Amino acid sequence: MVLHHIVEAQQFNKKTLQEIFIFADRVKERIERGFPLELLRGKILANLFYVKSIRTMFSFETAMKRLGGEVIGTESGEAFSSELVGATLEDTVRMVGSFVDVIVLRHYQSGSAKRAAEVSPVPIINGGDGAAQHPTQAIVDLYCIEKLMGGVDGVSIAFLGNLMNSRTIRSLVYFLAKYSGIKIYFASPRTLKMKDDLKEYLTEHRVSFSESFDSAEDLMEIASKVDILYLTQIPEDHFGDRICDYDKYREIFRINQNILNRLRKDTFIMHPFPRGDELPVQVDKDPRAIYFDQIKYGQFLRMGLLCYVLGVRVD
Amino acid sequence: MVLHHIVEAQQFNKKTLQEIFIFADRVKERIERGFPLELLRGKILANLFYVKSIRTMFSFETAMKRLGGEVIGTESGEAFSSELVGATLEDTVRMVGSFVDVIVLRHYQSGSAKRAAEVSPVPIINGGDGAAQHPTQAIVDLYCIEKLMGGVDGVSIAFLGNLMNSRTIRSLVYFLAKYSGIKIYFASPRTLKMKDDLKEYLTEHRVSFSESFDSAEDLMEIASKVDILYLTQIPEDHFGDRICDYDKYREIFRINQNILNRLRKDTFIMHPFPRGDELPVQVDKDPRAIYFDQIKYGQFLRMGLLCYVLGVRVD
Amino acid sequence: MVLHHIVEAQQFNKKTLQEIFIFADRVKERIERGFPLELLRGKILANLFYVKSIRTMFSFETAMKRLGGEVIGTESGEAFSSELVGATLEDTVRMVGSFVDVIVLRHYQSGSAKRAAEVSPVPIINGGDGAAQHPTQAIVDLYCIEKLMGGVDGVSIAFLGNLMNSRTIRSLVYFLAKYSGIKIYFASPRTLKMKDDLKEYLTEHRVSFSESFDSAEDLMEIASKVDILYLTQIPEDHFGDRICDYDKYREIFRINQNILNRLRKDTFIMHPFPRGDELPVQVDKDPRAIYFDQIKYGQFLRMGLLCYVLGVRVD
Repeated sequence: MVLHHIVEAQQFNKKTLQEIFIFADRVKERIERGFPLELLRGKILANLFYVKSIRTMFSFETAMKRLGGEVIGTESGEAFSSELVGATLEDTVRMVGSFVDVIVLRHYQSGSAKRAAEVSPVPIINGGDGAAQHPTQAIVDLYCIEKLMGGVDGVSIAFLGNLMNSRTIRSLVYFLAKYSGIKIYFASPRTLKMKDDLKEYLTEHRVSFSESFDSAEDLMEIASKVDILYLTQIPEDHFGDRICDYDKYREIFRINQNILNRLRKDTFIMHPFPRGDELPVQVDKDPRAIYFDQIKYGQFLRMGLLCYVLGVRVD
Repeated sequence: MVLHHIVEAQQFNKKTLQEIFIFADRVKERIERGFPLELLRGKILANLFYVKSIRTMFSFETAMKRLGGEVIGTESGEAFSSELVGATLEDTVRMVGSFVDVIVLRHYQSGSAKRAAEVSPVPIINGGDGAAQHPTQAIVDLYCIEKLMGGVDGVSIAFLGNLMNSRTIRSLVYFLAKYSGIKIYFASPRTLKMKDDLKEYLTEHRVSFSESFDSAEDLMEIASKVDILYLTQIPEDHFGDRICDYDKYREIFRINQNILNRLRKDTFIMHPFPRGDELPVQVDKDPRAIYFDQIKYGQFLRMGLLCYVLGVRVD
Repeated sequence: MVLHHIVEAQQFNKKTLQEIFIFADRVKERIERGFPLELLRGKILANLFYVKSIRTMFSFETAMKRLGGEVIGTESGEAFSSELVGATLEDTVRMVGSFVDVIVLRHYQSGSAKRAAEVSPVPIINGGDGAAQHPTQAIVDLYCIEKLMGGVDGVSIAFLGNLMNSRTIRSLVYFLAKYSGIKIYFASPRTLKMKDDLKEYLTEHRVSFSESFDSAEDLMEIASKVDILYLTQIPEDHFGDRICDYDKYREIFRINQNILNRLRKDTFIMHPFPRGDELPVQVDKDPRAIYFDQIKYGQFLRMGLLCYVLGVRVD
């Protein structure tokens, strides 16, 4: 099965993911050997961003250009959508899709990527739609785990911080549920806990998980057990006037020396960036910090993904 | 005669148009045969947009990149023009013209393209200046008519909707006046009727035309006669508080089943997009709807036009 | 010594400048001979602009693309910096630096280029940071002087207008201090005079300079003596309500026929653009006006500079 559109985590199975990883591996190998990368010469990608995201835009743009392809796009989502008031998403996708070979769509509405995929003459890659999903970022993380741990089966992972609103974590958890022997630990402020739908999904798929709220003690306990500590930023504006609450949680969910001491030697620290107080720069030098590798592997994965959806073989 | 700058419809004659169409034909053939398109490798186009237009920007950007060329530009017209306050259009064109090989200019002032052409060291293509003209969009439409009808001479065409403010229709009418046996039907709300200067131009050039206002009956009559029905969107804000007027005209100038029934089997429906209520998506499946072909032919034409003004032969 | 980062004028010596000029010369020669310029094929530059500057952005973008390289970037500085609130400059530079091969940074804070250079995995080119420096623009001017005058040693140059706030003039003066026999004349409104730190720097380095304020007579005298008259725009908003002052200085520091008559035949008129009243378009035809050459040489220099920092030999 070759996926034409990359819309949501649920559409993937382990085999498809493995195929995409092989594409990424081959791109990585070619780059490391210094081979020319003209695989996508003559192809054009459109960054169709109704919501701004410099990070996602940059990463796809670079991936495409590293492969010899070209990119069009608009960085300014609001302006774009206001100009095309009167133009439905469907008409815009049809129009842009008649110009280019692949579209990365970022939109403020859940389900937009699916709507786009239904009318688009070219592959759609979901670059984040509404609060729903951000599957490519999650595939990047999965690829990084696969490469650095030698596989995903049997991995134990703790997700910390803003679990309620992290699209990346949501998508990544859906992916993890496809593997066997996964153990998940959710640790967050109670008001930012993981949503029920996803926990139900895990229960249905018999994935082992636990939850912990507001507790520094639990965190120490969890830290000593897991293969991966996956951090996210706690948003200040979530707490409104309750600035003491913010200060309290910021303190609890920050990586400090005590936590570092409790982590095993082979535990990895991941973070999707941007970071806040939860991840002090002092941690950067710790050999267990792999968040800059996440970025590097992300580029290989995105290049592989582009070749994959465009049906271009990488040998 | 090779045109250096593409400024306004009036500067073209049938022979020049034919030459540009041949460039577009050859590009189309090369693409359909899968030939490499490196014709503009090493050339750079600047999208110099003082007014935002994602659509026009995207279409030239893609055309240039499909031919192996490069593009610089700014999507954000207001910001651009505010930064360059103190820099006249002339100085900006000179500066940018010393960086690149061709400039697509979009500006809020009528006559700007002409001013730019007077000082520019490289070809200027008018991507719309003020309320005046948008010649490239009109050449696109003309090329589409030429290809799909086998020629432009003798064509009968009805323009519907916002005739007063459509630059594309204005430019297209100027072009049509160069051909023989053209019959034009204007049908619009009385407050959005075609301006006098253009009707005088048609009279002078002995082009047959008629006008109809506010009448659904006329529209049925016209629909049964023409080769092409060219629709445009009726702007809600034109009517201010008179929302009933808007509702009335929106109803009259909307393509419905009755109109579709009255159209001949070989009549084409065109639309420059974006669309509003006047063109329901149900019409998309009608074989007479060619507005997505307009977009496709537009890309061939723009590619041909770029080769033409840059003096690059397409064999 | 090969410089990895281009941060400030002080880091250069005459030898390094000469090396960069040789790169620029070779690029110029290749272009003039019509050689293909694929020197930077496969390389990617990021325009990381926290502050908007279309001019600087365009010039680096074109330089990179003329050499076969690619560019990513965001034109919209405010938006960029607001999105990355929470992301420090350091984290952003690390992230972007893992995507691309060279970064052009423009930032609102003095010292930002230095901070970026400390963490960046790829070369940083300072495209202007705060009120401090704009070294590349100054190197461009220096290269232009070198080419058109056959050398920089012994040059006498008058700087006119807004001396207090011109980063380009500040950087250029630092560069000139590295050469021998330089004579500098500062002529400005008293409220826009050159800052003390730079005059102290000149005194320390035994560079001959003089100052003149508010005087049309002095200007005539200076004009008759110098090899180069370097103009800048007097900013209207500097004077607030004192519109008469503005009008007075605008008049004094404007190039008029009297000044042109006093200039030697081999004196050059330079201007970094954009221009205001101080440089009427009538002067453009004067053979001593070389400000459009500044732009042209600027492109060769930027291309040479990119090859230099990327370690790509130009033969």
